[in-house]
Amino acid sequence: MHGPGLSSRGGTDLGRILSIPDGAVAIDGERIVAVGRTADLRRDFAPRAELDAQGGLVIPGLVDAHTHPVFVSTREDEFELRTQGKSYLEIAAAGGGILSSVRGVRAASKEDLLERLLLRLERFVDLGTTTVEAKSGYGLSLEAETKSLEVLAAARTRGIVDLVPTFLGAHDVPEEYRGRGADYVDLLIREALPRVAAARLADYADVFTEGHTFDLDASRRLMECARGLGLGVRMHVDQLSDLGGASLAAQLGAQSADHLEFVSEAGIQALAMAGVIPVLCPLVPLYLRQEREAPARRMIQAGLAPAISTDFNPGSCPLQSLPEVMTWAALRYRMSAAECLTAATLNPACSLARGSEIGTLEADKRADLVIFSCSNLRRLVSEFGSSRARAVVVRGRVVRGAEQVRTRA
Amino acid sequence: MHGPGLSSRGGTDLGRILSIPDGAVAIDGERIVAVGRTADLRRDFAPRAELDAQGGLVIPGLVDAHTHPVFVSTREDEFELRTQGKSYLEIAAAGGGILSSVRGVRAASKEDLLERLLLRLERFVDLGTTTVEAKSGYGLSLEAETKSLEVLAAARTRGIVDLVPTFLGAHDVPEEYRGRGADYVDLLIREALPRVAAARLADYADVFTEGHTFDLDASRRLMECARGLGLGVRMHVDQLSDLGGASLAAQLGAQSADHLEFVSEAGIQALAMAGVIPVLCPLVPLYLRQEREAPARRMIQAGLAPAISTDFNPGSCPLQSLPEVMTWAALRYRMSAAECLTAATLNPACSLARGSEIGTLEADKRADLVIFSCSNLRRLVSEFGSSRARAVVVRGRVVRGAEQVRTRA
Repeated sequence: MHGPGLSSRGGTDLGRILSIPDGAVAIDGERIVAVGRTADLRRDFAPRAELDAQGGLVIPGLVDAHTHPVFVSTREDEFELRTQGKSYLEIAAAGGGILSSVRGVRAASKEDLLERLLLRLERFVDLGTTTVEAKSGYGLSLEAETKSLEVLAAARTRGIVDLVPTFLGAHDVPEEYRGRGADYVDLLIREALPRVAAARLADYADVFTEGHTFDLDASRRLMECARGLGLGVRMHVDQLSDLGGASLAAQLGAQSADHLEFVSEAGIQALAMAGVIPVLCPLVPLYLRQEREAPARRMIQAGLAPAISTDFNPGSCPLQSLPEVMTWAALRYRMSAAECLTAATLNPACSLARGSEIGTLEADKRADLVIFSCSNLRRLVSEFGSSRARAVVVRGRVVRGAEQVRTRA
Repeated sequence: MHGPGLSSRGGTDLGRILSIPDGAVAIDGERIVAVGRTADLRRDFAPRAELDAQGGLVIPGLVDAHTHPVFVSTREDEFELRTQGKSYLEIAAAGGGILSSVRGVRAASKEDLLERLLLRLERFVDLGTTTVEAKSGYGLSLEAETKSLEVLAAARTRGIVDLVPTFLGAHDVPEEYRGRGADYVDLLIREALPRVAAARLADYADVFTEGHTFDLDASRRLMECARGLGLGVRMHVDQLSDLGGASLAAQLGAQSADHLEFVSEAGIQALAMAGVIPVLCPLVPLYLRQEREAPARRMIQAGLAPAISTDFNPGSCPLQSLPEVMTWAALRYRMSAAECLTAATLNPACSLARGSEIGTLEADKRADLVIFSCSNLRRLVSEFGSSRARAVVVRGRVVRGAEQVRTRA
């Protein structure tokens, strides 16, 4: 049994993982009641039923703090175009990229979107992820963004994972506002954000702060509006250029600053001072064939507590596996296995204001946990290509591997 | 239904994939009898049973032409050391690397090795691979190499996959021969290779031609001996430096030249003239954090027909998924989806002298095929992290997804 043995207040002190050989987790209802040696917990709790990990690895349910799962189809034709040398911005300029997914979402029925989303959420669970931050952002109209958030709300009631909805109307400027970006920002500020907040359709607002989308000034106006309406702030910053988005995220007291491939030293210091959690997506530059990668080790040295994420989306990273992300965080960022685990559990939980609720295996926390067949954490991190969970528990309920549960006399 | 529509004599003409929408494969016993439209085959053959791909992708069983699956444990601690900045050669010099696995294999019983190998072969099938070239090479003594090959022979009789055994006694110089590499080469030539050939324990011999293992002269002597004994020749060449191994492989008429990260232009031309198939392992340099990658596009331009492989092994690439390798071949080598498929089917089949038997879906070939849930080939290649097959057929037998077979009245 392995789990980050950190306090629930934050994960800046990476790497202090408490590993319990022959360990066990005692669960009552939706909650963990104790963590310790199997023999001790059997004696103290006389459990009615047991799920035997059979020497496997037990870790907290994985937490993905950055996904875009509300879309119709993946964009594999753009993958092939990139193989032939086209860049992200060239594909976007030709009507591909985000705007291509927007056409799909606008045309789709709510039922169709929901059905596709639910399949994706089930797949997250297959791979050990039990909490998923999920953004709208392929609607880019009042109607289609509302539809996307309502689909997320409908999926949330199913309880497949803990779904945290984020409004990303500021993902890109839609085609009908081309050349009139300021008008679209006004629409978001005057109508979209107030509606989303009033209907409680999102916990967070997000913006893609970049040269071709929303500049620093527009991003500031959008996020100040969101904050004033009671929404938390997450931001896509410094992904394709050093625009100074990290510093803005720090000034705004964002809950997370995401991507950060081009973040400056000043940006890192600002994030550290403000206690913003960086959400890094190690596979995205590899997938887009961009050389620049996020300076994760510098962030850790600066006292930041990075989360790592799939950035699951139909174009720049059609990936749902956090175990795979852990492998690549180790390979590309030189994060240790313990750092990778913390970055896929407690740190993203903190970035979603759930650090006291999930992200570690501790008494009183929610019983979200996952069992992998491999015998140790380093092995989970060092292998890639196929890391399905052997069993998954969400809110105390065994949702994968239920056939492995044995009742005790 | 998709499959390379190429002749069985070679795959130099990459990219000519024949895709049949609403296609089907008619199978009788172990053989494909026809490939075409579902309606046509139903009319012509009136099949007794059908496996419905349900809109999924049907491709030839994947062929992995370079694996090292006979070992005890993976070496995840070395992964962590590399995270801290240690190089492959530093770890090897400190007793890690191949020699660390050698200690494990020498100490293990044949039964233990077989049990572990069989689990790995089942996992290959889960991921769509139906033919596996498998090397010894963690024994490095007459006894332990023989044991490894006998374990492969025992596994072969199970028919889980088509297993092609390769003798890799020349994987490294064992510790007891340190400083006496020439004596070890003599042992291989005088005793090991003749024994292996006489007992028909391997179809191929292989050598790791590199500065710290076997130089060009030793490699030539070893492979000439193997060839004289009737064994085919495969070679690890130009992986860590440009030693000229590719040219040697060409001179020796090797069946494959593997790795090739440092191959020179002269080496590429030599391989092309000799018709040697390059077996590339795109994930290995990423996994070892080495910058240099194989110049796959230059090889294709030169008329070579590359295969792509996992290089599955306990240290430098604990990966079994060829779908994952296809994704990374597209990302790193800029191979198209069609090129990736050919490189994971027909080309490795040709490198194993099975080009007329497997590697495409054609009448009279062996009925090895795999069904993935995704709707098209580009999607299979563009997604990563979890590509289990939905169904797998080996020699006409449905070994995964048998519950999906429907008998027809």
